[in-house]
Amino acid sequence: MSGQGLFIAFEGGDGAGKSTQVRLLASALESAGREVVVTRQPGGTELGSAIRDLVLHGDHVSPRAEALLFAADKAHHVDELIRPAIARGAVVVTDRYTDSSVAYQGAGRDLGAVEVHDLQMWAVDSLVPDLTVIVDVSAEEGRRRRGEVHDRLESEADSFHDAIRQHFLAMAQGAPERYLVVDGTLDPDEIHAAIMGRLTSSGLLGEVSADPLGDVAP
Amino acid sequence: MSGQGLFIAFEGGDGAGKSTQVRLLASALESAGREVVVTRQPGGTELGSAIRDLVLHGDHVSPRAEALLFAADKAHHVDELIRPAIARGAVVVTDRYTDSSVAYQGAGRDLGAVEVHDLQMWAVDSLVPDLTVIVDVSAEEGRRRRGEVHDRLESEADSFHDAIRQHFLAMAQGAPERYLVVDGTLDPDEIHAAIMGRLTSSGLLGEVSADPLGDVAP
Repeated sequence: MSGQGLFIAFEGGDGAGKSTQVRLLASALESAGREVVVTRQPGGTELGSAIRDLVLHGDHVSPRAEALLFAADKAHHVDELIRPAIARGAVVVTDRYTDSSVAYQGAGRDLGAVEVHDLQMWAVDSLVPDLTVIVDVSAEEGRRRRGEVHDRLESEADSFHDAIRQHFLAMAQGAPERYLVVDGTLDPDEIHAAIMGRLTSSGLLGEVSADPLGDVAP
Repeated sequence: MSGQGLFIAFEGGDGAGKSTQVRLLASALESAGREVVVTRQPGGTELGSAIRDLVLHGDHVSPRAEALLFAADKAHHVDELIRPAIARGAVVVTDRYTDSSVAYQGAGRDLGAVEVHDLQMWAVDSLVPDLTVIVDVSAEEGRRRRGEVHDRLESEADSFHDAIRQHFLAMAQGAPERYLVVDGTLDPDEIHAAIMGRLTSSGLLGEVSADPLGDVAP
């Protein structure tokens, strides 16, 4: 495997099984000799955690302020952790990235998805993952996995979760070369195999055997 | 005086005498029977103070993250404090607003002034002051007032402060109907009189005597 930096994001609703896939992928890449940096959004840095606390535990925060705080977290995360890791040849695997911000803030709150997208892109200075894996489950399945009771309130929540799901699917449809949508109801090993297959077939893991200079210094 | 909401910002370098003018103006307007809300940027709200602490006392914060944090502070400040006060008919007087962010972050850091301006405008949802007073002093005069010693480092700082000053003056030149530039070396009472004169002549304080319904209910 080549040592070129790589950036992989996992997106999807809560309860879709993202964290299992992050773990399986990180483990497989480490076994293959790669440095893997696993992180998550929001809150993957010390400043990020402080920002997360501000948003979640402070007084009421206006929607715009909240979007800007999450964007600040993202900017810091990219500048301090993600870009340096990619630059030294590591594989960065993140549990959520900009698409979650766009889907959640754009779908569920008072701001438009396009505005949130532009803000996020400015925050990360246009750093886009080499591959974004959408772990897709229906709103009902996600609720079932989160173990929530089905009542009137939950039915309303389903439409919220469905709007978010549709956002993810639309983003994937808009740039299929940068996305992989996997069915989150499949067996975790099966999903993992699909992700590894895509990484290999797309050449993102490098093709050492096809590179005549692969074993030659410097 | 009418009770229509009004928004006045003071901008200028450190040591220009802004806070004296804020105090004089607030006092004059209160004497005239207006509700006056005095605030400042950054940090005019509880969340704002927390954000300010994060930026000033935390670890290294990347330029983009810093710009976004200050923008979040501004967004919250406008949504929670400034807009409600204007809506109920108060005069809001702020010590620094968006122009300072643009001047300081755009002139001195790694980001472009246009980018910072766009970000700030998004944060405040395009809320522009009815009048922005630039209290203008030269970089040398500002340094003298801040009581700093003149050494090589300070000479370098002068060019930084001069860049900021030029930003303020350029903004005023671009929209003279919304700006008043006052010479900060004048006597404070003289400056205050100039500001009151501008507020009166521009009709921003309302013209009760010219309003035949001024003393009539509904």
